[in-house]
Amino acid sequence: MNKGVIFIISGPSGSGKDTLMVELFKKCPEIKFSISSITRAMRVGEVEGVKYNFISKEQFEQMIKEDKLLEYNSYVGNYYGTPRKPVEDEIEKGNNILIEVDVNGAAQIKEKMPEAVSMFIMPPSFEELERRLSGRGTESEELIRKRMQSSLDEIKRASEYDYIIVNDDIATAVDDIISVMRSCQLRQEKQKHIIEEVLEKC
Amino acid sequence: MNKGVIFIISGPSGSGKDTLMVELFKKCPEIKFSISSITRAMRVGEVEGVKYNFISKEQFEQMIKEDKLLEYNSYVGNYYGTPRKPVEDEIEKGNNILIEVDVNGAAQIKEKMPEAVSMFIMPPSFEELERRLSGRGTESEELIRKRMQSSLDEIKRASEYDYIIVNDDIATAVDDIISVMRSCQLRQEKQKHIIEEVLEKC
Repeated sequence: MNKGVIFIISGPSGSGKDTLMVELFKKCPEIKFSISSITRAMRVGEVEGVKYNFISKEQFEQMIKEDKLLEYNSYVGNYYGTPRKPVEDEIEKGNNILIEVDVNGAAQIKEKMPEAVSMFIMPPSFEELERRLSGRGTESEELIRKRMQSSLDEIKRASEYDYIIVNDDIATAVDDIISVMRSCQLRQEKQKHIIEEVLEKC
Repeated sequence: MNKGVIFIISGPSGSGKDTLMVELFKKCPEIKFSISSITRAMRVGEVEGVKYNFISKEQFEQMIKEDKLLEYNSYVGNYYGTPRKPVEDEIEKGNNILIEVDVNGAAQIKEKMPEAVSMFIMPPSFEELERRLSGRGTESEELIRKRMQSSLDEIKRASEYDYIIVNDDIATAVDDIISVMRSCQLRQEKQKHIIEEVLEKC
């Protein structure tokens, strides 16, 4: 049996990544999702084990020490990262798994697992990015400017990714992601067994 | 504007490639098709300029001399090959173009244009290949054995291709080809202009 494929998805604030992920999993419920480990407190509406595993700082530092993370980082005093084992288990079973991370996390995973396939979600234009970030209407000018800068900093690293998905129309962007995933299964190195099966009979 | 992509498709006798091509062009009439130049006589039902340009041996040899072919070969005393110019013109215009060739032709094109994306159409199993080749019912045992051998010889070189499309169910195989084509447009190197467009405004 073939190993599954690891897909990395990143998208800056304003790329519409969150809505895109919801629509993607509606359309492809069979895709596994990598649950991040984080040390910050649970927020209202969050459920343990859905998007995050909430663990202590001590547990997280133990995982770092034992090299049990594919990537990790810290943000305002808390750690967040991707545990290695669940990802490895799924691909061993032949399942594809999606890891949602930022540009730093994506670079760390690619270094450890160069066979992972990475996708970057882009806003269709600078103007649309501005519109999306300011359109929420509830934040200060200052916060919007900060978000914009952080998005642009991530977009500057988009060329590190294998595929760029432009999220103008959500349905099209979801189909683009599905095409990338499907095409990766069709790569020669993933289809070797079929060639061998046919040839061993002759 | 981005250059188009060159797609190479090969499939041995019994892979069902011809039916697949018909269905693919029905679904994606916008894909350009590379017309081969050949020196054999026109057969009943063939029309100049649809699948082939019928030219003289002298004209063909002139093209070889002037390096005007992306690939060529000879078979029972006749030449066939892929003229370079129409392919280059289409990709310059940003169009994708599909070249249908055998394993030798595919290898020649890949050497000249490593950026071309190649797909190999496989029968789903040895048994099904046998069934398809003998199922025509009109040929001698000897001819069937020869066809089988030639198919297996091509399948032995399937691992030279970028993607393997298993043609069990035609609709699925057509969608697989379309996924590969779509995903190639989304590759980072094809999407650079979008990244640049967003960043140059900031």
